[in-house]
Amino acid sequence: VTNTIDWADGPDGPAVVIVDQTLLPHSEELVRLGSVAELVAAIQRLAVRGAPALGVAGALGVALAARTSADPGADVAVLRAARPTAVNLARGVDRAAAKLAEGPDAVLAEALAVRDEDIACSTSMGRYGAELVTELLGPAPRLLTHCNAGALACVTGGTALGVVTTLHAAGRLGAVIASETRPLLQGARLTAWELQRAGVPFRLAVDGAGPFLMARGEVDAVILGADRICANGDVVNKVGSYAHALGAARAGIPFLVVAPESTVDMGTKSGADVEIEDRDGAEIVGSVAPAGTPTVNPAFDVTPHDLVTAIVTDRRVVRLDRGETLAGVALGEVRG
Amino acid sequence: VTNTIDWADGPDGPAVVIVDQTLLPHSEELVRLGSVAELVAAIQRLAVRGAPALGVAGALGVALAARTSADPGADVAVLRAARPTAVNLARGVDRAAAKLAEGPDAVLAEALAVRDEDIACSTSMGRYGAELVTELLGPAPRLLTHCNAGALACVTGGTALGVVTTLHAAGRLGAVIASETRPLLQGARLTAWELQRAGVPFRLAVDGAGPFLMARGEVDAVILGADRICANGDVVNKVGSYAHALGAARAGIPFLVVAPESTVDMGTKSGADVEIEDRDGAEIVGSVAPAGTPTVNPAFDVTPHDLVTAIVTDRRVVRLDRGETLAGVALGEVRG
Repeated sequence: VTNTIDWADGPDGPAVVIVDQTLLPHSEELVRLGSVAELVAAIQRLAVRGAPALGVAGALGVALAARTSADPGADVAVLRAARPTAVNLARGVDRAAAKLAEGPDAVLAEALAVRDEDIACSTSMGRYGAELVTELLGPAPRLLTHCNAGALACVTGGTALGVVTTLHAAGRLGAVIASETRPLLQGARLTAWELQRAGVPFRLAVDGAGPFLMARGEVDAVILGADRICANGDVVNKVGSYAHALGAARAGIPFLVVAPESTVDMGTKSGADVEIEDRDGAEIVGSVAPAGTPTVNPAFDVTPHDLVTAIVTDRRVVRLDRGETLAGVALGEVRG
Repeated sequence: VTNTIDWADGPDGPAVVIVDQTLLPHSEELVRLGSVAELVAAIQRLAVRGAPALGVAGALGVALAARTSADPGADVAVLRAARPTAVNLARGVDRAAAKLAEGPDAVLAEALAVRDEDIACSTSMGRYGAELVTELLGPAPRLLTHCNAGALACVTGGTALGVVTTLHAAGRLGAVIASETRPLLQGARLTAWELQRAGVPFRLAVDGAGPFLMARGEVDAVILGADRICANGDVVNKVGSYAHALGAARAGIPFLVVAPESTVDMGTKSGADVEIEDRDGAEIVGSVAPAGTPTVNPAFDVTPHDLVTAIVTDRRVVRLDRGETLAGVALGEVRG
């Protein structure tokens, strides 16, 4: 299995190599990004996306700047601001940039550490999350997920989808409903592709059907990733997540958020303090709506903490439904 | 303005004529349906859709059967079952079919009465609804609507969108957010087209954004149509409506349902008793998801009555939020 994002250093010079997610599921192509400008463009057109993967992209991008750029400081600033909502991008940039004074090799070593930690995080989240799901829902849970929180959102493995594949491998999964995730259809294009390749039984549904499928008794829990988790437990994630959370609360089923500690932002008090990226209306209008149709296109939404049952990271499970808080639950070990 | 559906009787023989809604917004074409088989096919591929329009289609279809069919009874049965969820289709069929014994002219007269009543209903709903919206929200309400509840869902005018255009004409509308309505995008294709032609200020959003836009304070009320309203006030409407209702309840804004009395089905106790049409997965998968992706594709959902603020018909306003019931509120006049 190819890593979603990685470092390459060969005769053509240094580069960040990504699986171009805009071409999936019809074509699986690696793209070599030899400059920070190319990497920023790839981030902005979502050729690489997902909070953990963006963290790695940020770190590797700084390593690329250190090797190739005449003005690494300026490149780093542009990269850091390429997308505003997920905290991981800025964090990955900052970690690697802190080594700039020590030279390109030190920067690269730090960036590769970010990459390797992400791989370890996925494994650990899969273990913590699978245990929680089994404890809450027994041996054959039917889970609904939104957007893509799989290997394609990380280096490999996944956050929420890592839990799904861990459960599947252990014979402890019922089935999955993947929400298609308009406007860019990461659920239909990426999650369906990953689930199909993993042999996980699943069905695809439109986003608007989620709460109704929960009400009809076809879903035992919602499980999804996060782009930023605020200090009070508010979860910023792909637009449509909040609607699923409302559906889960009404149906009385758990709403589970799976993300690495690098997504937890104790410096941001609540969801109201997060800049929500508004993206180009062409994503919605496409060739379907009348020409000139105006849009409102927030890429993310905020799920208030009272709708979140638990937050699962690579180092702990925080049971918000039991009154636990991010500030109050100590970090545990990263599990291999 | 052309009627969405109408009767034509010329040198080519009798026919039901519709605006083919699958071609909008790019092409506005009238299609002549000279047999019940053609009409049924048009209904099933949603070339004509919307509960009130389906009622008229049912009635005109029986008139067509009476003129053209060797076995009108069999044709009527097929037509009646063409789509299961909206009560209007079966009701329109039944009204016209009750005249079959009196001959084709009597059937046609009844079918044209159904058509004319639908036109009058739209005007009346617009008046009742606009008054309610102004009363609840003042002179510049920002409304979110889902699917298409406009002229294209009726003969002309509209249900929820009729209220919107009535408000706009009176200078008492702020703006509209149209929810795109996957999988068939009636919001993006049809509602956007109608609002643009009417000069109503609007923006298009993905379905999953609705509840978040409400939480963010960009919506003062949700207003939409219905395919069937049950005796207890449960509302069956296009899938995604329930998610918007949950969003409205959480945001503390009204959720308003506008539909003619012919959509009220006192013979069906609650939403649990309604057959929800499951449609072909190809509508979701399209060319986007991997080949062979399985789906779950309910075309409608159920909004429980406790989430409904008011039901507006052509003859009354039933304030569920004040404890009023469909059984308890008397019919008023149809307002011209």
